[in-house]
Amino acid sequence: MSDPLPTSATIGILGGGQLGRMLSVAAARLGLRTHVFEPGAAPPAGDVTHKLTTAPYEDVDALAAFARSVDVVTYEFENIPTAALDVIEALAPIRPGREALRISQDRLTEKTWLEALGLSVAPFANVTDHASLEDAVQRIGTPSILKTRRFGYDGKGQWRLTTPADAAAACADMAGAPAVLEGFVDFSHEVSVIAARSPAGEVACFDPGENLHEDGILRRTTVPARLTPSQRTDAVLMAAKILNALDYVGVLGAELFVTSSGLVVNEIAPRVHNSGHWTQNGCAVDQFEQHIRAVAGWPLGDGARHSDVVMENLIGDDMDHVLELARETNTALHLYGKTVTKPGRKMGHVNRITPARSN
Amino acid sequence: MSDPLPTSATIGILGGGQLGRMLSVAAARLGLRTHVFEPGAAPPAGDVTHKLTTAPYEDVDALAAFARSVDVVTYEFENIPTAALDVIEALAPIRPGREALRISQDRLTEKTWLEALGLSVAPFANVTDHASLEDAVQRIGTPSILKTRRFGYDGKGQWRLTTPADAAAACADMAGAPAVLEGFVDFSHEVSVIAARSPAGEVACFDPGENLHEDGILRRTTVPARLTPSQRTDAVLMAAKILNALDYVGVLGAELFVTSSGLVVNEIAPRVHNSGHWTQNGCAVDQFEQHIRAVAGWPLGDGARHSDVVMENLIGDDMDHVLELARETNTALHLYGKTVTKPGRKMGHVNRITPARSN
Repeated sequence: MSDPLPTSATIGILGGGQLGRMLSVAAARLGLRTHVFEPGAAPPAGDVTHKLTTAPYEDVDALAAFARSVDVVTYEFENIPTAALDVIEALAPIRPGREALRISQDRLTEKTWLEALGLSVAPFANVTDHASLEDAVQRIGTPSILKTRRFGYDGKGQWRLTTPADAAAACADMAGAPAVLEGFVDFSHEVSVIAARSPAGEVACFDPGENLHEDGILRRTTVPARLTPSQRTDAVLMAAKILNALDYVGVLGAELFVTSSGLVVNEIAPRVHNSGHWTQNGCAVDQFEQHIRAVAGWPLGDGARHSDVVMENLIGDDMDHVLELARETNTALHLYGKTVTKPGRKMGHVNRITPARSN
Repeated sequence: MSDPLPTSATIGILGGGQLGRMLSVAAARLGLRTHVFEPGAAPPAGDVTHKLTTAPYEDVDALAAFARSVDVVTYEFENIPTAALDVIEALAPIRPGREALRISQDRLTEKTWLEALGLSVAPFANVTDHASLEDAVQRIGTPSILKTRRFGYDGKGQWRLTTPADAAAACADMAGAPAVLEGFVDFSHEVSVIAARSPAGEVACFDPGENLHEDGILRRTTVPARLTPSQRTDAVLMAAKILNALDYVGVLGAELFVTSSGLVVNEIAPRVHNSGHWTQNGCAVDQFEQHIRAVAGWPLGDGARHSDVVMENLIGDDMDHVLELARETNTALHLYGKTVTKPGRKMGHVNRITPARSN
C-alpha cells in the first residue's frame, strides 16, 4: 500500500480511549471513516466513530472481521498483544509497523535499541530477580528507579530507590515481573518532540513542548519549550533518526531530558502523545490529523505554530471546574466524554493560547 | 431547562449533513454525546455521532423515540416539517425555538418580521399568481428576483427577471409555489455576522466575514471583512437585535448587504452557517461549539479571532485537487465524507490562515 487512500476509505483504530477519539475526529476531517476496536464498554472514541467493535484482543474472529473491514490499521497505545497483531497483519497493513511496537513495548529493548542508534539514554540495567537487582543497584547506584519492562504508563509499575536498602521491598512489590533499573539523570527539564513520517520518507516535526509531570502524570505542556537553537535542532534530528531507523509511518512522541551535556531520550511512544495535544489549537494541522495523513499515505500537513500554547490536563476532579474553564478567554476545552471520574484519570485538557494578534 | 447540561448529556440533531457533522464533533469536544436524526442513508454526520436514526420526518414513532433519548434537540437546517417539530416539542426542548423556525422558513414572513423590527431589507412583494407578479414587477421594477417563499437554498428556487417580459416564464417555472419578488439592492459587497445567544441572554458575535457567491453558492468568506468601524458596530447591533427579539438560543447567521446608505439584511438562518466555517481555524471556540454551548446552557466561549482566515468551499470536482490542497502551508482541510460528488454539491472547505506570528 503506497497510494494515498481515497476519502471513502476506512481507518481501523485499536483502542477507543481519548487518543482514539481524537484520531477518529481527525480522520473524519479528511473525509475518512473510522472503525474502532476496543474491549471496554462505552469507550470515548465510540461517540465519534463510524463503527465500533466491542471485543477482547483475544477474540480472533472479531479481530479478523475488524481487519477485513478497514483499509489500514493504526493504534492509540503500544501494548497491543502480539497475537492480536499477528491476526490483523495477515489481513490489513499496520501503521506504524510492527518493529516500532516491538521496541516500544519493552523498556529494556527500547533503551538498548536507542543506545545502539547512538542516542543518549539514562544508565540502565536488566533486572530479573533479587540478585540482578542487587548487581544493578551496585552498578547504577541510588537514587534510581525500578520500572517494569512492559505495560507501564502514567507512573504505574515504578518504584523509586532512594537508598540501596529500598531494593528488597521494590523487588517484592514487582512480584517477579521483568524490569529495568534506571539511573537518575541530572536534567533541568523535560521536552518532547512530536514527529511524523510519511510512507515516502517525508519527515515533519512540531515545535518541541516542555513537560511538567505531577505524581508521574503529565500535568502541563508549554510551547515553546526552553531550548537553545542548537538544542532545538538536536531534538528534531534525534526524532528524525528514530523515525528513519524504524522506517516509521505515523506520528511518534519522544520525551527528552535536557541536560548540561545534551539531550537524553527518556522514552518514545509509537503514537500520538499527550504532550502533543497543544497542536489542536496551535497549528493548522494537529498531531492527530498528521498521524492519519501519514497512515493514509496522504501528504504530511503544515505543523507550523501560529500561537503559543499551554496545554493543561484535566485530571480526576479537575472536572468540577469545567464551567469556569469554559468561561476563560483564549482557552479551548477538550473533554473526552468519560462518564466515570476517578482520581488520576485523564478526563480532558485545555489549550490556553497566546495569539500574537489581539483584537 | 435552564441549568447547564452535564457532560453525560445527549444533544439531538435534526439533519445529518455537514453542519450536523461539525456540530456533532463540537459536542464531543465538550464531552457531550449526540444523536442524529436523518432521513437519508449514510449521512456525513453518521461518521461522528454516538447514535444515528435513519427515518423520514413523517415517522412519528421514530421522532418520538429520538426525542425521548436526548436532553435537547437542535437542527442543522430550518426547513423541518412543522408536524415533526410538534412531535418533538412535546418530549424535548427545541433550541433555537419554534419562533425562529417559523420566521426563517418563509421568505415573506422573514422580510415582514425584519422590517417590523426596524431593520432594512430589500424591497419585496408577495406573489401568489401571474396577476400579483405583474403588480409586483410594476411596483418593484426590474432587474429583480423571484424567489419561492419556502425551501430555497444555494440559489435553488430563484428566477432572475431582467425585464418585465421575463415574468411570464418565471411564473410558469414556479408552478404556483408561493413566492416573493425582491428588488435588487445596490450593494458593494455582502458580509455575514455569526452571532450566538445563551439561555441567560448573553450575546457573542464572531468578527463579520465577507462573502463571495458564484452561481448562487457561497464560494469564499474572507475575514476580516471590508467594513468601517461604524458598519462593524451596526452589523453586531443588528444581529443582537434579531437574537433578542426572538429570545433566541444558539448560533444564527445573518447575511447583510453593505450599501452606501447602510446595512441591508439579505437573509437570516437560525443555525450555524457556511460563512462561519472560518471560525474553526481562526478562533479558540468555533461557531459549532458556540452553538452547542448555547443549546446546552453552557457559558458562551471566547470567539476572538487569533488569525485572519479565507474560507473557500470545495464544490463538486474541486475534490479532484484535495491532495494538492493538503500540501499547502497554513491551510486546514475540512472534508464532509460525502461518497458521491455532484456538480454544485458542497464536499468540504479549506481555511487558509494568516497567522500574525511567523515561525
